Amino acid sequence: MNIKIEKLIKQFAKLPRVGTRAATRMVIALLQDKTGRAESLAHALIDATEHIHPCQICGVLTDGEVCEYCADVARQNGELCIVRDFSDVLVLEKSGVFHGRYHVLGGMLSGVDGITPNDLNIACIAQRIEQEKINEIIFALPNTVEGKTTQQYIISTLNNTDVSFSELASGVPLGGDLDYIDDGTLTLAFGGRKKL
Amino acid sequence: MNIKIEKLIKQFAKLPRVGTRAATRMVIALLQDKTGRAESLAHALIDATEHIHPCQICGVLTDGEVCEYCADVARQNGELCIVRDFSDVLVLEKSGVFHGRYHVLGGMLSGVDGITPNDLNIACIAQRIEQEKINEIIFALPNTVEGKTTQQYIISTLNNTDVSFSELASGVPLGGDLDYIDDGTLTLAFGGRKKL
Repeated sequence: MNIKIEKLIKQFAKLPRVGTRAATRMVIALLQDKTGRAESLAHALIDATEHIHPCQICGVLTDGEVCEYCADVARQNGELCIVRDFSDVLVLEKSGVFHGRYHVLGGMLSGVDGITPNDLNIACIAQRIEQEKINEIIFALPNTVEGKTTQQYIISTLNNTDVSFSELASGVPLGGDLDYIDDGTLTLAFGGRKKL
Repeated sequence: MNIKIEKLIKQFAKLPRVGTRAATRMVIALLQDKTGRAESLAHALIDATEHIHPCQICGVLTDGEVCEYCADVARQNGELCIVRDFSDVLVLEKSGVFHGRYHVLGGMLSGVDGITPNDLNIACIAQRIEQEKINEIIFALPNTVEGKTTQQYIISTLNNTDVSFSELASGVPLGGDLDYIDDGTLTLAFGGRKKL
């Protein structure tokens, strides 16, 4: 195969959940398109990388000095939701369930991957609690060992503040059939059962 | 969401079999990456669109005047394989099953989508038969109504040449379990059954 095409396919194949087959399909569609889609994709990408950066307060991707959530005074309601990355912010915003401020860690603590507290956006949380008068921290981290470890670590660094902590409820998802629920989720759902 | 990010997600979501969710994941991965993957993807894309074009003989994507298959005299063995698009060439090359020349149509005839013979790379096939001393045309088109219509149309335009025509065999795929084969394929496999 032509080396320029091969190089392009390799670049696309590095995208999350894209294999060589899907990358090949994407590259061929782009190169065969006569409406200039490939150029406009390349220019949108360059434009975004030049202007988009993490918000200096919370880590949300933005092209301003601070992001739209940190700039919105109506969102300063004392609630701070801690998430792993920007995609989690988009999911929560789409659901419309949360109206406070966000804090993006940029990953989870992991001994296996060698990710330490210094690699994550953790140090400035204490400062935000004071400056933004936060009284509740809501952890919306992945329900995994890494998520729980990170959550415990953050709580331990904040033990001299009088903020309260909460985490998302674990249990059977809406419309979830017990036949298809794993044992771990079932155990959590039983442990957290609610009196009616 | 930021308008530049939204624009980029929309561009990615136009890629084949990529929805908004997958596009969002790709864009966030690119923008959060600190190794410059987004820039290098954009530059590879621009480089490819500037230099890659269809081979003037067969339609295969190339950065030369003619593609590697048309330039290779060893491939002038009298066989011409007609395919829908460039990705089919890659699939056949990977299998190593064919050693002749290719001809990429760039689509299938379709009344529904308004694709006529003039939209496809059909007119020059007769000229290739003469110039490249083709004696067998092998149709490797999709096994669909559009594929068969296109095949019949091409045969009808070449009825004053003494080239022979063949098409790929239809039937049960290797390792195929009859439980999972559709009725159409089963009918073709029965019709084309081989005496042992």
